[in-house]
Amino acid sequence: MFEARLVSCAVFKKVLEAIKELLNEASFDCSESGIQLQAMDISHVSLVSLMLKSNGFDKYRCDRNITMGMNLASMSKIFKCANNDDTVTIKAQDDADIVTFMFESKKQEKISDYEMKLMNLDQEHLGIPETDFSCVIKMPSAEFARICRDLSQFGESLVISCTKEGVRFSTNGDIGNANIKIAQTSNFDKEEESVTIDLQEPVTLTFACQYLNHFTKATPLSPQVQLSMSDNVPLVVEYVIPDLGHIRYYLAPKIEEDEN
Amino acid sequence: MFEARLVSCAVFKKVLEAIKELLNEASFDCSESGIQLQAMDISHVSLVSLMLKSNGFDKYRCDRNITMGMNLASMSKIFKCANNDDTVTIKAQDDADIVTFMFESKKQEKISDYEMKLMNLDQEHLGIPETDFSCVIKMPSAEFARICRDLSQFGESLVISCTKEGVRFSTNGDIGNANIKIAQTSNFDKEEESVTIDLQEPVTLTFACQYLNHFTKATPLSPQVQLSMSDNVPLVVEYVIPDLGHIRYYLAPKIEEDEN
Amino acid sequence: MFEARLVSCAVFKKVLEAIKELLNEASFDCSESGIQLQAMDISHVSLVSLMLKSNGFDKYRCDRNITMGMNLASMSKIFKCANNDDTVTIKAQDDADIVTFMFESKKQEKISDYEMKLMNLDQEHLGIPETDFSCVIKMPSAEFARICRDLSQFGESLVISCTKEGVRFSTNGDIGNANIKIAQTSNFDKEEESVTIDLQEPVTLTFACQYLNHFTKATPLSPQVQLSMSDNVPLVVEYVIPDLGHIRYYLAPKIEEDEN
Repeated sequence: MFEARLVSCAVFKKVLEAIKELLNEASFDCSESGIQLQAMDISHVSLVSLMLKSNGFDKYRCDRNITMGMNLASMSKIFKCANNDDTVTIKAQDDADIVTFMFESKKQEKISDYEMKLMNLDQEHLGIPETDFSCVIKMPSAEFARICRDLSQFGESLVISCTKEGVRFSTNGDIGNANIKIAQTSNFDKEEESVTIDLQEPVTLTFACQYLNHFTKATPLSPQVQLSMSDNVPLVVEYVIPDLGHIRYYLAPKIEEDEN
Repeated sequence: MFEARLVSCAVFKKVLEAIKELLNEASFDCSESGIQLQAMDISHVSLVSLMLKSNGFDKYRCDRNITMGMNLASMSKIFKCANNDDTVTIKAQDDADIVTFMFESKKQEKISDYEMKLMNLDQEHLGIPETDFSCVIKMPSAEFARICRDLSQFGESLVISCTKEGVRFSTNGDIGNANIKIAQTSNFDKEEESVTIDLQEPVTLTFACQYLNHFTKATPLSPQVQLSMSDNVPLVVEYVIPDLGHIRYYLAPKIEEDEN
Repeated sequence: MFEARLVSCAVFKKVLEAIKELLNEASFDCSESGIQLQAMDISHVSLVSLMLKSNGFDKYRCDRNITMGMNLASMSKIFKCANNDDTVTIKAQDDADIVTFMFESKKQEKISDYEMKLMNLDQEHLGIPETDFSCVIKMPSAEFARICRDLSQFGESLVISCTKEGVRFSTNGDIGNANIKIAQTSNFDKEEESVTIDLQEPVTLTFACQYLNHFTKATPLSPQVQLSMSDNVPLVVEYVIPDLGHIRYYLAPKIEEDEN
């Protein structure tokens, strides 16, 4: 028996939005410690890793480890039927071929349940090595999303250069070239708006805008995003899901002449 | 001479929105008692019946009964030119082939008139027998619209089951199945949000989602909707238009194995 | 060296919106007195004339007259990357083939610069004779935009008739015909909402709706629009850009039988 309950389903809706463009279907691995998902995107370029810890749920029970293969478009349709402040309960029997999503409205006058067929998906488990990064940038997630969206109008590749002064995002294309410089924040009025850089050594790497734009679909989950970079190692874009876990995206840098 | 005047044209705009998806054109029958419209939808499956009582208008004069055949898309274009708080006056000569819509702004600084050609439409008058229904449900119209919209994502048919405890809406399709239960309201804080069931005997009937979704275009007209059901008799979906009349939609149940 | 700086780039964004539907590319003539643009629209029917005076800028320097040919779609992409309250600085070297747009956020924590390639455009300078007009109408720009949009649903031509009582806009087409009358305002509570008519003699002229709708894209620039009309002379539609200049559109009347 598996059962997980969240008093507000808004966060689950946001998680779905954050992954459904990159993945058509996904295996959710449920264990005592929580719900985990790890998958390459459809085009096998980037990697998504999601962790929702069991102690972040309002109720959580997992008698036996189970893996539930779900179609994300179907799941998204179901969650669109729920209001943000509905309570959601996810239920499945051991070895079941269906999962049930139950939504209860605040005043309990409306109870909806959706039974969805599960899928058998190939499992490919990828070891992600722990790395010490040359630089770790924390910045407002909305600002990062805006920069990726704006600059992807001009070129397909985005160069991220990090020094101790700040971060420079740049691109160039047919129209001309574009540069956006973000300075490290000196005073900390609002932590959520701050830009902080933890630098071992300066790094300049080039990435495909398209994937960065997919990652920023996670923006509503967290006011800050963390970018971790080292030469010749995939970029990690991490959004902390408050009290519940995190979502991380991995993307290998492009090898290009315009990299520096 | 026919003349009908409403100080706020918002309600007329909403009436048009409520019928223009189901009907391309319609005959408005004007008499001393008011304006009436009755027509089968384009695909001849459901029936729309509209009544706007003469005493609900701010001014109303109808010397002789007239029937005005109007193209609803054209009429809708004309009403889109009016602001919600404009006064509307509908005018026609006896035996005229044009109707005039005049809109006056609140401060009278802007007066618009639109002359529209009338159409000769075949009249098919349908007797609607009065029926005692096995159950009559009153519920918030927005909730009904939401349920129809949500469940039509999953299947083409919607099963409505009514017992004295409440109403269950369900559907099933390729993804799985979906059930929404609405309980009868016990205390009446806000009448508009209440769910009340007048039950002679429990009923379970199946309807085509597509038409229910068309009917819910009337939602802005009224905070409550009334669903009247009996076995082997068309469902009646009624929206009361405050102080002015009502709009009713009739839809025969589907005969299906998944009906119970 | 050319440099022009505006503390808020909102007005520049609005100027671009006001011309980019009519022109694909345009020559901006920069001199000590300001930035000027004059061009026939793509279909060579109407004329656009823009003036941004140098003393309306927060900083303005123009050592030598230069003409910068710009692609307006590219320019619009660049300005979409700026926030309304960003400071914008436009810079170019004499005889340069690129122009730089620099945007600085309010708190200076984000600095973006976009280098855009300039184009060589054919220059066609058109003398616009000063005319005394038979009537000059000032009215709320949003009302004018609404009327043009509403009436263009019914016909391709818009007749504007001006007498000392007011202005009548009319059109007719397959559906029927439409008339909107606007009265001259008698009391002046809010100047922005007033309608004033300066009349030498009554005028009735017919114009293509399509172009009027393009002109009204300038509506956000100014709360009032001024329409100047005389027989056999192009209509002038003028929007004053507060403290900075103006944009004027010229459109010749149609010669039609339905003109009166």
